[in-house]
Amino acid sequence: MDKIQISAFKWVPPAAQGFVRDLRVRWALEEAGLPYEERLITLGDEQKSERYRKLQPFGQVPALETEGLAIFESGAIVMHIAEQSEELMPADPRARARVKTWMFAALNSVEPPIMMLNFIDFQPDGTRQGAAKLRDSMVQWIGTRLDNLATFLGEREHLVENRFTAADLLMTSVLRILRTTDLVSTRPSLEAYRLRGEKRPAFQKALAAQMAPFAANAPQN
Amino acid sequence: MDKIQISAFKWVPPAAQGFVRDLRVRWALEEAGLPYEERLITLGDEQKSERYRKLQPFGQVPALETEGLAIFESGAIVMHIAEQSEELMPADPRARARVKTWMFAALNSVEPPIMMLNFIDFQPDGTRQGAAKLRDSMVQWIGTRLDNLATFLGEREHLVENRFTAADLLMTSVLRILRTTDLVSTRPSLEAYRLRGEKRPAFQKALAAQMAPFAANAPQN
Repeated sequence: MDKIQISAFKWVPPAAQGFVRDLRVRWALEEAGLPYEERLITLGDEQKSERYRKLQPFGQVPALETEGLAIFESGAIVMHIAEQSEELMPADPRARARVKTWMFAALNSVEPPIMMLNFIDFQPDGTRQGAAKLRDSMVQWIGTRLDNLATFLGEREHLVENRFTAADLLMTSVLRILRTTDLVSTRPSLEAYRLRGEKRPAFQKALAAQMAPFAANAPQN
Repeated sequence: MDKIQISAFKWVPPAAQGFVRDLRVRWALEEAGLPYEERLITLGDEQKSERYRKLQPFGQVPALETEGLAIFESGAIVMHIAEQSEELMPADPRARARVKTWMFAALNSVEPPIMMLNFIDFQPDGTRQGAAKLRDSMVQWIGTRLDNLATFLGEREHLVENRFTAADLLMTSVLRILRTTDLVSTRPSLEAYRLRGEKRPAFQKALAAQMAPFAANAPQN
């Protein structure tokens, strides 16, 4: 891939900083050693513009553009990068199929109830209070998924082939969303797994890169 | 792939019949013209057994086994099949990247709020009543996603390259979940899109194959 450009936000509210999904793509690009440029857009206006929607029909971040190719969905972009980089996916076809399995598990089995919990927790008070019982069911659902994940991991440090892959990149990104709860921190093997991912130099570089424009473009009070 | 075996349930309650996720994989296999066998398990006991968890750590259906390979997650399995079948994914690398983009869009951007709505609607009365405002927010979220999808589709009949691909297979499967609401049926282009998918002979064959064991194993009253 030549001249990679990814979209990201100029600024987001503090609660979202360090969690916007371009982080997943920046992280993958850093692991793969691929340089990229960012195309910063504003939350709201530019994000919802017809022009940006041509690139990303749902107005989400990130989208990736490179010579002759425009794709979106952080999962799809991470997979696209991983398919071209042994840093993120081993060469063996069976191992690749397992990495892809766990990428989908992260995004379609583990993340949806976590997104839901996040959605509930950011509702106005009245909505949130009424949904307290629902929130309990959601926490239980997430807990079961996390227990299953912990059981699978056992003594393993990574999901596939005893090495870091794009599957760990996505799973770590998903577990991070639970930072405002004790769902991960009370499960020591998952907490250690998350910290292992976050300690990687590529993650740290990606995080700093996402945060830099937020500091530069913080609203003046 | 040789001797493909997929897991599916012997029986599920009527509301889930025709919607268990092995349907997505059966549909992909039918489109690709790949014969398969089913390994039927019971909801609950076998599903939660240590033996099945070795194959599918979250106890979900489906998992796929073929010579020397065991994978799970319907999204990952459909992608695995599609990567080997031009019926589901064109040969051109750019088109493939777009198909994968839309596969992730279906499962990680459109399906999660739909799963959430489904989750709310299947809660006991007390939980559901308290969550009425939350449900409204969720319906709005889904509506926005569906409007974005309808805008993207415009006059298009398919998501990528003006032909049916694995992206349409997954998007149609996701839209079907909204059958108990008017969210799709009130958006004529999406309703037509869904019906186009469901009319395909491969879908019809897959649906009949999922339903057959449910009829054979219905509980006796």
